[in-house]
Amino acid sequence: MPLVDFRTEPARYRHWRLAVDGPVATLTMDVDEAGGLAPGYELKLNSYDLGVDIELYDAVQRLRFEHPEVAAVVLTSGKDKVFCAGANIRMLAGAPHPWKVNFCKFTNETRLAIEDATEGSGQAWLAALNGTASGGGYELALACEHIMLVDDRSSVVSLPELPLLGVLPGTGGLTRLTDKRHVRRDIADYVATRPEGVGGSRAVAWRLVDEAVPRARWAEAVGARAARLAGRSARRAGMRGVALTPLAKTRTGTEISYDHVSARLDRPAGVAEITVSGPAQDAPADVGALHESGTGFWSLAVARELDDLILDLRTNETELGTWVLRTSGDSGRVLGYDRLLAENAGDWLASEVIGYWKRTLKRLDVTSRSLIALVEPGSCWAGSLLELALAADRSYMLAGVFSDLDPDAERAAITVGEMNLGLLPMGNGLTRLQTRFWGDEPGLAAAEKRAGQMLEAEEAAQLGLVTFAPDDLDWAEEVRIAIEERSAFSPDALTGMEASYRFAGPETMETKIFGRLTAWQNWIFYRPNASGPDGALRRYGSGRRAEFDRKRV
Amino acid sequence: MPLVDFRTEPARYRHWRLAVDGPVATLTMDVDEAGGLAPGYELKLNSYDLGVDIELYDAVQRLRFEHPEVAAVVLTSGKDKVFCAGANIRMLAGAPHPWKVNFCKFTNETRLAIEDATEGSGQAWLAALNGTASGGGYELALACEHIMLVDDRSSVVSLPELPLLGVLPGTGGLTRLTDKRHVRRDIADYVATRPEGVGGSRAVAWRLVDEAVPRARWAEAVGARAARLAGRSARRAGMRGVALTPLAKTRTGTEISYDHVSARLDRPAGVAEITVSGPAQDAPADVGALHESGTGFWSLAVARELDDLILDLRTNETELGTWVLRTSGDSGRVLGYDRLLAENAGDWLASEVIGYWKRTLKRLDVTSRSLIALVEPGSCWAGSLLELALAADRSYMLAGVFSDLDPDAERAAITVGEMNLGLLPMGNGLTRLQTRFWGDEPGLAAAEKRAGQMLEAEEAAQLGLVTFAPDDLDWAEEVRIAIEERSAFSPDALTGMEASYRFAGPETMETKIFGRLTAWQNWIFYRPNASGPDGALRRYGSGRRAEFDRKRV
Repeated sequence: MPLVDFRTEPARYRHWRLAVDGPVATLTMDVDEAGGLAPGYELKLNSYDLGVDIELYDAVQRLRFEHPEVAAVVLTSGKDKVFCAGANIRMLAGAPHPWKVNFCKFTNETRLAIEDATEGSGQAWLAALNGTASGGGYELALACEHIMLVDDRSSVVSLPELPLLGVLPGTGGLTRLTDKRHVRRDIADYVATRPEGVGGSRAVAWRLVDEAVPRARWAEAVGARAARLAGRSARRAGMRGVALTPLAKTRTGTEISYDHVSARLDRPAGVAEITVSGPAQDAPADVGALHESGTGFWSLAVARELDDLILDLRTNETELGTWVLRTSGDSGRVLGYDRLLAENAGDWLASEVIGYWKRTLKRLDVTSRSLIALVEPGSCWAGSLLELALAADRSYMLAGVFSDLDPDAERAAITVGEMNLGLLPMGNGLTRLQTRFWGDEPGLAAAEKRAGQMLEAEEAAQLGLVTFAPDDLDWAEEVRIAIEERSAFSPDALTGMEASYRFAGPETMETKIFGRLTAWQNWIFYRPNASGPDGALRRYGSGRRAEFDRKRV
Repeated sequence: MPLVDFRTEPARYRHWRLAVDGPVATLTMDVDEAGGLAPGYELKLNSYDLGVDIELYDAVQRLRFEHPEVAAVVLTSGKDKVFCAGANIRMLAGAPHPWKVNFCKFTNETRLAIEDATEGSGQAWLAALNGTASGGGYELALACEHIMLVDDRSSVVSLPELPLLGVLPGTGGLTRLTDKRHVRRDIADYVATRPEGVGGSRAVAWRLVDEAVPRARWAEAVGARAARLAGRSARRAGMRGVALTPLAKTRTGTEISYDHVSARLDRPAGVAEITVSGPAQDAPADVGALHESGTGFWSLAVARELDDLILDLRTNETELGTWVLRTSGDSGRVLGYDRLLAENAGDWLASEVIGYWKRTLKRLDVTSRSLIALVEPGSCWAGSLLELALAADRSYMLAGVFSDLDPDAERAAITVGEMNLGLLPMGNGLTRLQTRFWGDEPGLAAAEKRAGQMLEAEEAAQLGLVTFAPDDLDWAEEVRIAIEERSAFSPDALTGMEASYRFAGPETMETKIFGRLTAWQNWIFYRPNASGPDGALRRYGSGRRAEFDRKRV
């Protein structure tokens, strides 16, 4: 399979149409059957594969940055009588296990990005189901704030994964039914075992949708609802968007590089060495410069590059199991950019940039790779960039300098900044510092109190902000062992351990989706009852029933 | 493999010694190497299998019921230099997948029962690690309130599962490190990848243990700590325990029966039909009768029988994927027994009986079987018994009577009682009613308001207390389809769905253990990287390194 590229733009969409009319945008799903990312399946009935979802993600992002005047997004279908049939079954049945899991992760992130757009940007998403929404199609609707279903005695919503395919709804459907829409668990149980779905007034009574509207009143009702949703928002005409210009990227077999981010792919070692460069200049004095620079603004540029890099490595480089994270540059400048954003968090674009950082860091949190941060002289682990180290499973900080290499270098240091204190929460609702010091209030207070100060290794280690602080003599050996042993451990067990440790403390719908649901689905996907030659996923559409090992586990 | 029997008593223990000395009990682990439940492995170094844990569970229960005067339990080892090496690896490597998962579930429940004894009965457990505690051995210590480790330069605590076996610590070790002991996640990461473990002052500094005590002061220090823990408790000398007399049980290939509980095993259908009988007499007038009756008291007897039945079916009948739940008897009498307990919740024995119900219902919540409750005329779904229906995935309630069978019967009814309103919380900390109506405060209030009233089908359905309320004409067909279709679905997908739906709302350490950890571990256990012929679990001890598929999933 060729490398998957996550970069696209509306002019290149094959499966979606985006139309903006003042405060209301309409995003129409009209999947090109022949437009699958890989051969071997047709995307019938608005079913989707990763390629379809890459365009959807692009649309969500562009609506936020390029169309700030949009306050409501109508999500609907360009097909007759079908909204969306969910993930393409033949694609799933034929895909290797890691592909299935990674695909589900990205689609889940995109559904959460839709919810985040409502909460963070006041762009309310309205699912206008002009036909049946089944499986992942209904789950896409569940990510919207309001769901309208055409009431025509044939259109339904359904979750047929369990009865027809022997797997779970993979994009949060179970969790959103109970925890978001407050559908009673026994009703939810019934719905998820009933492939024929539920429509009309029963779907409304069971809270599966918010409205069922006859076809005769459909267009008018959708328009009125969209206008009402848009009316709630603070977004107003006159805001001028920022174009998400094409991302400059070069990629070879051993290196991926962007303007500020680069990754060296060390295949024999199973390691990606990622370096993020700090700003080359001081931050501008006011927020106007952000609007002028657009994607040239350091913070936005880095978020975009990191986002693309994470997606690229997750999808295309599954054997690079360890990501070593470095930064390079001036901490003061990083904090200057952070400060400009934080002080202007009321500005829509500054807020969008912060939100993009938040989502990119969350993407890192749910990435199934070991993350090791290295804090060396010349690095700029401060504020927003320090979050990368706090997201890591472990960090090593050099005590002092490399005396052979550069005895006169400034000693390695880290700085807690405003960005670490609340603007970039994790999926569990806490900051990475709060999660790190979960249950240790004095430890958290001590770390937060030092915000703004350059902390050298001994102090950073004592405060618990880095894991280990070896000196020059021990550094090379200790870091080498940490990285090498990571590559020698079971990748599966590492994934399970990291997913557990990264989310200490409280849980949310989001952490349930990436923790519980993903773990159950991984298991179910891997079992012969789903993916074996006689399993439900493989037999679907063959006219033959699946054969199950009936032992309950 | 012969049927596993969960009934035992101290006189029959092969692996433990229980000694009670006033307020302090000492439970000594001294595993009989040759005493494994199945052939093919030796239980060296105090490693355990299900048989060892069955005895531990029995001891936990007996301490609560038979030794109410005990206020501290010292958990220690009868071996030299080793506390406990955790679950036996050869046993795990040779066990089929369902056995591994069920074994971990039971051991997890028993660890939680230890924590529950501290919280619910004021019996504080003290882990006195007189030697190395590794893997499940350390996890057993983590379930205790206080951990002492002998400081002798060789004894350590460790979680070597990931580096040596390619699996996760399976009994809550990861979660307890971060969420209970507040070990920082990067330190926890280091600990769980370091097979050689951590001892002495470093183990204390990292919060892995509470004290490290030199061997010279060991006995004295453990005694003093146990006395201090015991001194905190309200438990006092003079309380007289109740003997947990042998459980009367008959078991054939098609039926399991006790005094009040029976199960018909319908193997062709894959169904166990479970019936719980209500009390044959009215509840006694005062709590003295409970102390006199002991295990003859209806509520205690039913809790014991249900507990044993759940464990038996889970372990021995993995192909009975659906449990149909019925009750039979007089609702008023059930509520009478409940009332006696609730009004005397300050009495230690009444409190223990309520606690036992709580734990038994929690066991049902985490059981990987579809639970369907049937509410028919002649049933007594009230209070404590109604919890069984609320724990079910679905319930069907007959509207009225079976006119052909018994037209003059009293119409089927359910009654919300005091036991449904807070005394029997789930693992998520909520009552089953609160979980059911999660996010629907008016629905919860409406249901709770009707406490004490007999509710017939239409009303019960309208209040959301039962799922469906078919009448006589539809009943047989509707119930038959529900049960039959359950048996036709993928057992794996059902397990995943039910585990998700049963725990709407907030999460706790307990739900994380049964949700996240269990799901991840299921997946990891099933992957060739652990359980394949070249996997880490199978190759352990062979002198050959595991071979991993290095793709990160």
